[in-house]
Amino acid sequence: MSASSFDGVGALTFDVFGTVVDWRSAIIRDGEELGRAKDIDLDWPAFADDWRALYQPAMERVRTGEIDWCMLDDLHRMNLDELLLRHGIGGLTEDETDRFNRVWHRLDPWPDVVVGLTRLKAKLILATLSNGNTALLVNMAKRAGLPWDAVLGAETAGAYKPQPRAYLRTAEMLGLAPERCMMVAAHNGDLAAAAALGFKTAFVRRPNEYGPEQTSDLEPEGVWDIVAEDFLELADKLGR
Amino acid sequence: MSASSFDGVGALTFDVFGTVVDWRSAIIRDGEELGRAKDIDLDWPAFADDWRALYQPAMERVRTGEIDWCMLDDLHRMNLDELLLRHGIGGLTEDETDRFNRVWHRLDPWPDVVVGLTRLKAKLILATLSNGNTALLVNMAKRAGLPWDAVLGAETAGAYKPQPRAYLRTAEMLGLAPERCMMVAAHNGDLAAAAALGFKTAFVRRPNEYGPEQTSDLEPEGVWDIVAEDFLELADKLGR
Repeated sequence: MSASSFDGVGALTFDVFGTVVDWRSAIIRDGEELGRAKDIDLDWPAFADDWRALYQPAMERVRTGEIDWCMLDDLHRMNLDELLLRHGIGGLTEDETDRFNRVWHRLDPWPDVVVGLTRLKAKLILATLSNGNTALLVNMAKRAGLPWDAVLGAETAGAYKPQPRAYLRTAEMLGLAPERCMMVAAHNGDLAAAAALGFKTAFVRRPNEYGPEQTSDLEPEGVWDIVAEDFLELADKLGR
Repeated sequence: MSASSFDGVGALTFDVFGTVVDWRSAIIRDGEELGRAKDIDLDWPAFADDWRALYQPAMERVRTGEIDWCMLDDLHRMNLDELLLRHGIGGLTEDETDRFNRVWHRLDPWPDVVVGLTRLKAKLILATLSNGNTALLVNMAKRAGLPWDAVLGAETAGAYKPQPRAYLRTAEMLGLAPERCMMVAAHNGDLAAAAALGFKTAFVRRPNEYGPEQTSDLEPEGVWDIVAEDFLELADKLGR
């Protein structure tokens, strides 16, 4: 597809965890620091993976209505408390636990992200379409220099991806038909949900999101409009 | 109050129409252009004032529940249709009317705004807290180069200022107590509503918002934390 095929696209909507930022390295980094400070001996890479593994089941409880709407900071905290209990870690103050929970506000972008987004921002609206809550995404962007035009997603839509409302309400708030939005994600499932609603799609490969042993989302598994190795190639393919 | 009194402030929340952008000049500008193109002879400054005069009554119908939630683009359109009827202007196509209605997406900032916001952004979260809908504010920011960290307000809160929920939900979405937010506005009423909920307050004088004959909001009418002539003085007083 040539760049001109995307002339009608007005906004890129970005998945954030894994696509824009590397959550795993930051959790390991802050976990190891906490471990040194509080004399906690843990396999922090495994802890990071366990914390992330509780992410979808927690959101599913909200999606199904088992629990009321709950922003991601609160779901992360619920899962963190569960993991601390599981590992018998009881020596953290409320402030220490809260600070560690907010490691999700302090994730670093992949190396290509800020340069790529800055190029893309010249011509397109850049919005998050993330399950992260607004404060999390705003604090992350402020720290990392992510130049979003709009911070949208689950909290502003009142629904967690892949529920259709998360995508449709985001497009609506941008004043654009779904066809004029392109979902950018490293996850085939996210792109499939967006495509089913009319979004254009860009798969960006993030083969180390889950560490060196990653087995999922290594390849595009659908007919996506763009496949790119990183945000620089995405900008190239969009002609920006 | 010295700059250090504001150390706890994490975010500035901005009123937009009148405080950040000059709505009146843009409506006159685009109205005159439309008038030339379509041979419509109108007093466009008076038209601008009339359109703005219908703004509060329209929002009041939403606030009281007389009509269901309706974003500002739709209220502007309802009011525009009313004014076109009142002036017997019937020769506009749907596209022309829609385009003129979106003049609110194409407002220009006061001359001090972009420089002032850029200084303030280095240390503080800058968020809109406007009755404008998200698309309107995002398009305006993109065109004018307004470096918001978050576009929030009536649409994301589901309530029009001065209803408390508009302010409180915005602070909540930023993850900050109201006391850690400073409302910036050229309107005493907006600041009074915010202050009653715990927000800090900054009054910025915009004596020409309503044109050369402006009689309201020329002076601070409350004990605001900061009074500034423009966003540069605001940045000075915040020590940024």
